[in-house]
Amino acid sequence: MASTVIFQPSGRRGQVEQGKTLLEAARELGVDIESVCGGVKVCGKCKVKIEEGFFEKFGIDSRVEHLSPLQEEEKDFLTEEELADNFRLACCCEVNGDVLLFVPEESRGAKQVVLETGKERTFQINPAVHKYYIEMEPATLEDHRGDVERIKDTLAEKYGLPKDMTIDYFLLRRLPNIVRDAEWKVTVSVWNNKEIILVEPGLAEHSLGLAIDIGTTTVAAYLCDLRTGQSLVVDSMMNPQVRYGEDVLSRITYHMMNDDGLEKMHQAIIEGINTLAQRMTEKIGQKPEDILEVTLVFNTAMQHIALGMEPGFLGRSPFTAGTKESQNIKARDLGIKVCKGANVHTLPVEAGFVGPDNVAVLIAEEPYKEPEKIRMVIDIGTNGEIDIGNAKKLLCTSCATGPALEGAQIKFGMRAAPGAIEKVIINPETLEVSYKVIGQDSWYPDIQKTEAKGICGSGIIDMVAQLFLSGVIDKSGRFNLKLNHPRVRRGEDGKPEYVVAWADETSIGKDVAFTQADVRAVQLAKSALYVGSRYLMEKLGVENLDSVTLAGAFGSYIDKESAMVIGMFPDCDLENVAAVGNAAGDGAKLALLDTGKREEATWIARHVEFVETAIEPDFQMRFAAAMAFPHSTDKFPHIQHLLDRIPKR
Amino acid sequence: MASTVIFQPSGRRGQVEQGKTLLEAARELGVDIESVCGGVKVCGKCKVKIEEGFFEKFGIDSRVEHLSPLQEEEKDFLTEEELADNFRLACCCEVNGDVLLFVPEESRGAKQVVLETGKERTFQINPAVHKYYIEMEPATLEDHRGDVERIKDTLAEKYGLPKDMTIDYFLLRRLPNIVRDAEWKVTVSVWNNKEIILVEPGLAEHSLGLAIDIGTTTVAAYLCDLRTGQSLVVDSMMNPQVRYGEDVLSRITYHMMNDDGLEKMHQAIIEGINTLAQRMTEKIGQKPEDILEVTLVFNTAMQHIALGMEPGFLGRSPFTAGTKESQNIKARDLGIKVCKGANVHTLPVEAGFVGPDNVAVLIAEEPYKEPEKIRMVIDIGTNGEIDIGNAKKLLCTSCATGPALEGAQIKFGMRAAPGAIEKVIINPETLEVSYKVIGQDSWYPDIQKTEAKGICGSGIIDMVAQLFLSGVIDKSGRFNLKLNHPRVRRGEDGKPEYVVAWADETSIGKDVAFTQADVRAVQLAKSALYVGSRYLMEKLGVENLDSVTLAGAFGSYIDKESAMVIGMFPDCDLENVAAVGNAAGDGAKLALLDTGKREEATWIARHVEFVETAIEPDFQMRFAAAMAFPHSTDKFPHIQHLLDRIPKR
Repeated sequence: MASTVIFQPSGRRGQVEQGKTLLEAARELGVDIESVCGGVKVCGKCKVKIEEGFFEKFGIDSRVEHLSPLQEEEKDFLTEEELADNFRLACCCEVNGDVLLFVPEESRGAKQVVLETGKERTFQINPAVHKYYIEMEPATLEDHRGDVERIKDTLAEKYGLPKDMTIDYFLLRRLPNIVRDAEWKVTVSVWNNKEIILVEPGLAEHSLGLAIDIGTTTVAAYLCDLRTGQSLVVDSMMNPQVRYGEDVLSRITYHMMNDDGLEKMHQAIIEGINTLAQRMTEKIGQKPEDILEVTLVFNTAMQHIALGMEPGFLGRSPFTAGTKESQNIKARDLGIKVCKGANVHTLPVEAGFVGPDNVAVLIAEEPYKEPEKIRMVIDIGTNGEIDIGNAKKLLCTSCATGPALEGAQIKFGMRAAPGAIEKVIINPETLEVSYKVIGQDSWYPDIQKTEAKGICGSGIIDMVAQLFLSGVIDKSGRFNLKLNHPRVRRGEDGKPEYVVAWADETSIGKDVAFTQADVRAVQLAKSALYVGSRYLMEKLGVENLDSVTLAGAFGSYIDKESAMVIGMFPDCDLENVAAVGNAAGDGAKLALLDTGKREEATWIARHVEFVETAIEPDFQMRFAAAMAFPHSTDKFPHIQHLLDRIPKR
Repeated sequence: MASTVIFQPSGRRGQVEQGKTLLEAARELGVDIESVCGGVKVCGKCKVKIEEGFFEKFGIDSRVEHLSPLQEEEKDFLTEEELADNFRLACCCEVNGDVLLFVPEESRGAKQVVLETGKERTFQINPAVHKYYIEMEPATLEDHRGDVERIKDTLAEKYGLPKDMTIDYFLLRRLPNIVRDAEWKVTVSVWNNKEIILVEPGLAEHSLGLAIDIGTTTVAAYLCDLRTGQSLVVDSMMNPQVRYGEDVLSRITYHMMNDDGLEKMHQAIIEGINTLAQRMTEKIGQKPEDILEVTLVFNTAMQHIALGMEPGFLGRSPFTAGTKESQNIKARDLGIKVCKGANVHTLPVEAGFVGPDNVAVLIAEEPYKEPEKIRMVIDIGTNGEIDIGNAKKLLCTSCATGPALEGAQIKFGMRAAPGAIEKVIINPETLEVSYKVIGQDSWYPDIQKTEAKGICGSGIIDMVAQLFLSGVIDKSGRFNLKLNHPRVRRGEDGKPEYVVAWADETSIGKDVAFTQADVRAVQLAKSALYVGSRYLMEKLGVENLDSVTLAGAFGSYIDKESAMVIGMFPDCDLENVAAVGNAAGDGAKLALLDTGKREEATWIARHVEFVETAIEPDFQMRFAAAMAFPHSTDKFPHIQHLLDRIPKR
């Protein structure tokens, strides 16, 4: 005897043999209901709501009585309200008649989730590693299948997993003890339906993944829950390779000049990752071994060095990479100390210096999904990457920005961390300053004493824009020393500077100043980005941008108005300019949480078209012209009103 | 314009576009011609013979002139005779007209080869690792594919390999330097069409594989050429785990009693393998790193310990293995020092203690291919394994034989190595002895001075048979001390013994004797084998054996008559008894050289039926009855004439 079962909101319906559970019915009808324990009534995840009444639209009379009676286990997992509201556990209900039921969002297997970041990004949770709880028949004299085969048979039977999966060797060694200590009730972690990488006793729900964006200067890391997609811990550190060279080329040079240079730099970043994994898991009372998958994004040079792969040929024509494809590497082979069987997934490379980090930005921002409008996405880092276009065509280029916008090579520059000045406003009348420090809620001068010890990227951009708008520096970036204001002075080295914070306000007991050399460093960076943007627009044949997205790993978001005032990118309606934070990091997270995004990455890496800009004959001339604020000749109608207000002194 | 090309002896024919080479024509028509270099005229392997004349049967007029003229490269590879005989290199001949050609055996891609061992075994060469020579287009500014992708594209184009292959991580690290140092001409080693495991500069033809049979007492190793199937070096050693226990159960006990016991035994065998790999490759002027694939066979306990996998549950009911399937494990993960990207393949387990070594014996002996007759295959080792049956049904069992037949626990027992007495004849009249020593061509007493220092397995079996046939020991194995012969005496411990070699004949300056205890050890071993054989015959419902195959890892072949005289197996026509040497080792070699044999192994491991014999209620009684020579009650008509001649004293 069969009955009709209809699942809402999908509307999937079908005939189900009586006596089968709603969970089995869902499987048969292709409805994805979450069930960590596979239907043995121990996880309580498969909550569904039974609708009561006759539903004309479907021609079905749905009754709670059409299911087997409430079981004890259900009372443990369902609240009073839920019970009153006809909630049941799908694994506990045998079908005895027609039923219409609703699968609430939380019980759906493939959930739409919002990435917890500045910008809301929606994605499917579909990580490379899935966990499956199984209860096996213990071995007997009659049934002496091997332990691995017993697990695979059970996974195939209960979850439809393929029988030709392999098992990680180091797990295999411990397996006989694990399954027996757990009395044959275990949670199995399976990588990409291909390899069993972990077997844990009992029902083990937690499932951690680590997404890492290895920038030239900054390493940003995100510890995520692979089941829910939640970001559990965010952390960052200075790239420990900085001691071997500030930028990509100096690190490649360090490798060329030192036999063990590559190995040293490789070990440095691996140790950095291990430090992050240790302290991030510690924060939530877990261990690095609980991390079951790692994704890495980086520029191409950082990719080579992080993988310990010869980077020498990236630095000279024809600038070829060892591999452009994504790689899956055992974390242990890389020396990364997480779960012994875990894999590290690296995103693919586009071209030359345009690396997996830009691919990550693309899969996060998805400009290839914009049908018509011209989008520009700028990822600001020590290497800047710019993408322009839409679904029809997408171009990208790379610019040597230098680390200034990340706070390096800036006298009081620092990472976006507590104590960093992240926002600056200068009163153009008084030349007095207001600023905000990361970790403090109020602005100076509303508070007398601040924790200020330096300036991070967003503060640096504000700084330059505000100095320019208040007339402290001129269009060419030169300090106006005729101002006769205590904050505008010559520093110890005799060079002009602006004092942002007086020693007694700060936590370091020193005046925090922004110098002429700092302004120059920012000019070099913003000019590189501007020239690259312009080349791309010409190559694409467009004169205006419909939108600009500013991404970057420097923590706090940069002020889009400040960025346009200094001329970091061509004119655009500020309404359509958005600062989205670390999009590369978001892309790394997306690739960690949704393997579909990995496929998208492989596809877009092949389809985006690389434009080499530094070899254009008029590059130097354009670069010089772009040094001015916002530009020596190009117009910026959308901020003209601000420029018009600059005091003439 | 197309012409007809016919390949002999296969008779494959087809239309081939003019201008294509014969090698390309062969590929199109599915004719497998050897071509190490992929057609770039540097390997000389693709020799073919052009037939001249009109061939009525095929309706084709074949002419040498129908091909492009002889090239310089061909003269380098073809002898005068071959040139006179219309031999050409297929890669150098462009088709301009109809051609009939013959592909000689040596040029065929999938060659039938005879395994170089005591028994001729024919197989296809189809190893897991294949080498491909490629010449790539160097990278340019316009074509900056990654190095890995460039290799994969070229392999796909030239050899039709799949594009989704992966690359070993440690190889990836070195790849950019390798391909550039080699000026883009490299030989690529590919594992199972799945993973690139090695890239070498230029044309690298040598390709080594190592097959290892890890016995409880003896480790036998075979270094093979993966291209030709030749056995290059054979070597063996005592299993270094012997110091932790003589047999399987004592090693499992050692593990149970010592926290680091498993790790110690695991490391011991891994170091043993590394020693063998080192000294075997050294012998042919190669390095362990040149070994690209390893196959391992062992009994189930040795499998667990060698892999470092918990063996504790093998020793107690229900005797389950960690895994019964074959495994592919990176050699480096096991600590085996061969090519860094190489894999180790282990054969599958049948049941309980019947391990991959018996599967190896089966794929070597192939009793499942015998349509009718009843075959028995006995693999003699510290654990004896017996198979019985044919294509219709195959049963197997395992017996605790002990290490006596491998020379262990025998007073002067030793491995089959130079200095071991391997054959013994006792004159029943004089009770004087003739014997032969491994490493010496002549028999004692034809030479006065021998290199004898002990007795190996085949000598031990001869010894017992000859002592029995000459009346020195009786049916129950007891020494007849009334003989009054200098060779039959009481030893230092007062126990009876027979002196095989006097001190002054030997290289050790000591009498080499065979003791009462030695006879007892052999009785225990042969009784276990006999009882197991009998149970299997009953289970299969047969009373007679059509043939018996004796296999064993103790080097020299045992004398089949001696083996039957002591009652090691049930009566059988001696014509149909064969000693084939180390069939498990042969199986390991076959699995190394032909991946088809791995599939056969997986199939037979599932189909052979395990019979547990030690738990039968009458086991002890039967065991006691089988201690006698040849048996206390069972008849041996095929050797009755020998038994009748035993002198009564």
